[in-house]
Amino acid sequence: MKGTMSDVKLEECREHIRSQLDNVVDFWLKYSHDTVDGGFFTCLGRDGSVYDKLKYVWLQGRQVWMYCRLYRTMDRFHKPEILEAAKAGGEFLRKFARVSRASGEWKCAFCLTSDGKAVKVQRTLFSECFYIMAMDELSRVTGDKDMQLEAEQMMEQLIHWVRVDSSGLGRPQLPGDVPTNSMAVPMMLLCLVQQLTEGQGQDVVQKYKELEQWCVQQILHHVQRAGTAILENVSVEGTELPGCSGRLQNPGHALEAGWFLLQYSAERGDEKIQETAISKFMELPYQCGWDKKHGGLFYFLDVDGHCPTQLEWSMKLWWPHCEALIAFLMAYSQTKKPELLERFFEVYDYTFTHFPDAQSGEWFGYLTQEGKVALDFIGGPFKGKIIRWRMYVEQPFLCCFSSQPCLLGCYEMGLAEGLSSSGVT
Amino acid sequence: MKGTMSDVKLEECREHIRSQLDNVVDFWLKYSHDTVDGGFFTCLGRDGSVYDKLKYVWLQGRQVWMYCRLYRTMDRFHKPEILEAAKAGGEFLRKFARVSRASGEWKCAFCLTSDGKAVKVQRTLFSECFYIMAMDELSRVTGDKDMQLEAEQMMEQLIHWVRVDSSGLGRPQLPGDVPTNSMAVPMMLLCLVQQLTEGQGQDVVQKYKELEQWCVQQILHHVQRAGTAILENVSVEGTELPGCSGRLQNPGHALEAGWFLLQYSAERGDEKIQETAISKFMELPYQCGWDKKHGGLFYFLDVDGHCPTQLEWSMKLWWPHCEALIAFLMAYSQTKKPELLERFFEVYDYTFTHFPDAQSGEWFGYLTQEGKVALDFIGGPFKGKIIRWRMYVEQPFLCCFSSQPCLLGCYEMGLAEGLSSSGVT
Repeated sequence: MKGTMSDVKLEECREHIRSQLDNVVDFWLKYSHDTVDGGFFTCLGRDGSVYDKLKYVWLQGRQVWMYCRLYRTMDRFHKPEILEAAKAGGEFLRKFARVSRASGEWKCAFCLTSDGKAVKVQRTLFSECFYIMAMDELSRVTGDKDMQLEAEQMMEQLIHWVRVDSSGLGRPQLPGDVPTNSMAVPMMLLCLVQQLTEGQGQDVVQKYKELEQWCVQQILHHVQRAGTAILENVSVEGTELPGCSGRLQNPGHALEAGWFLLQYSAERGDEKIQETAISKFMELPYQCGWDKKHGGLFYFLDVDGHCPTQLEWSMKLWWPHCEALIAFLMAYSQTKKPELLERFFEVYDYTFTHFPDAQSGEWFGYLTQEGKVALDFIGGPFKGKIIRWRMYVEQPFLCCFSSQPCLLGCYEMGLAEGLSSSGVT
Repeated sequence: MKGTMSDVKLEECREHIRSQLDNVVDFWLKYSHDTVDGGFFTCLGRDGSVYDKLKYVWLQGRQVWMYCRLYRTMDRFHKPEILEAAKAGGEFLRKFARVSRASGEWKCAFCLTSDGKAVKVQRTLFSECFYIMAMDELSRVTGDKDMQLEAEQMMEQLIHWVRVDSSGLGRPQLPGDVPTNSMAVPMMLLCLVQQLTEGQGQDVVQKYKELEQWCVQQILHHVQRAGTAILENVSVEGTELPGCSGRLQNPGHALEAGWFLLQYSAERGDEKIQETAISKFMELPYQCGWDKKHGGLFYFLDVDGHCPTQLEWSMKLWWPHCEALIAFLMAYSQTKKPELLERFFEVYDYTFTHFPDAQSGEWFGYLTQEGKVALDFIGGPFKGKIIRWRMYVEQPFLCCFSSQPCLLGCYEMGLAEGLSSSGVT
């Protein structure tokens, strides 16, 4: 394949991504560190100024993970300043993220003041997920066994909530509140299993094997309508739920689940899962989610074509595009099917002509349907819904994290894989 | 003033509003009643079809209130079918809205299944507010003393949460969670006092007098920055809070508080409050909130000019425009200042050229910044953030209600007042 148009374009992509990732990491290294109280500021304007000092545990955990991952896996980021920043962030997290519970359960705050006081605790398990990601990855670069144990113990707590008893999360049990399999939960757990088992011995792999298979099955339950749609929420029995919640589609999430499944299938050599990941979790969300008129992926859709009730349904967010890039590149690298590379290039062209901000070197997060910048900050308190406007918002809607480097990092790694697999290296 | 251009235009407005209100009431009478399980469907498409059967207690309460108010105060709606619908809605609410609590506290669900099973309970007090509105107004048309007592007892519960101990709402007390005076709370309480005392004897007025004054003071604390801005969230001491939450502006809310204050000042003959209501709670939000380029009121702004972090900050929602219409018309009717009528006309022109939907006879709720319809349904689960997408959203962001008639009703009444005061009648 050497020398073809596609190879040339892939090499260009790789070079561009590389410089973008450098810019992005520079931005966060330069502006996000709180040298007084520790941890990271994440509400950053285009000039790097901090417009809110609250510290969101998701983002703290992800930044620690990102720094460690860059340090550990990419030579040019194997620098003391990145390691030190990761360790400082990890220290802040360990000191402040966990809140004490009378029940003895482990629970993390969702949001902290800049000096580490808990502002909000969510009745979900995602803060804990990113806490585990951070602790596990940090223990890999520091060799700190105690930290690894911390990650494993928190993982046990998560598994208990998901598979045994969720009451510790603090949601009242209500007669009309039908138990739901939301894509985010098995997807995040699968991601955590992949994190915790990566490069570990058979004992660790075996420990999480059954859970991993359970996660995959739970994700597969989201293939609905005789295999023609991925739905975001299904019943615990794997059937469609009524109403808007049951009809909801989130193309970015489906694509993300898709590449988690691809990773799984690659480890197992499971061609059936690979085929399902690509045809169901990549092609379907792309077909329904790509805006034929303006380009880009919609945030939410309704499988029956109703207007979604989320105000931001038609906006173009950076993260579904990152997920799509990783997904299609990984699918291409595994299968070498040219149509998957074409998808990748299509998403790439939209993404890199719309999201990057030349001024900051970082990316915008939110565009209108037409592709205009809708929110012009670089980092948000959470990229999703906002602020604890207390009397209205009890728990904000969250979907992703502020800092691009993590995804860009995955992406560059994926891209490298795509390139090397296609023979360019 | 008879015969002036303004009078002619006001009369045209009145006629137009009248026909719009008729259409809107027809729509809800025709499509929203659940004749099987009782209560109202509120997720309605342009053709009146129900796209989600969940029943939101805010909207149930508001529709009962609206029907009663129309029946009680406007001759052409004094019809048995409206009374019966109100009573049926009230019965559904009384039967299902309240959830039992071990503590004995009164708490309403936020959302019910179509047959009345609780789906979600918020850790706020707004479901209870609309429950009170419904019960009080319904007791006025039915003469049901027990129902009136229900409203009063729920009001006592609310006052307890707001002024004595909020722990019964179920939010954990966290060290970093600074107590906040959010505009919505004193504003809603003031609205409830006005509802409960309207047309009642001195005993009832006296009972709520101190609370009413407290609410007014709490609202006035939102005038910040040396009188140059209304901020949505302030400290309980009345000072500015840090970060995005402290800098948040919600022009629609400020305007709504403005006309609540105007009602208060009119009852008391308090010219100082009247002046503050107009110059601070109407002029300031209009000045900062009106989109000079595309017209219409922004949903959220940041007083320092940062980009708000709410994804929907630049959208144009129907309800702030309704609040602005009521506010400026009421201000004009009290003062006869022509510039207030000009403001009214400006908001009127934008509102009635953008929100009404010719197909349904109802209104769209959500437009893009440029004024294009962004969500094309008529009624939403809540007009604001969406569905209990359980693993992400714990408590949705809510701001207003689906059915226009309530506000249109106020508005027509306000308009009638504006007209009669200006000598047209």
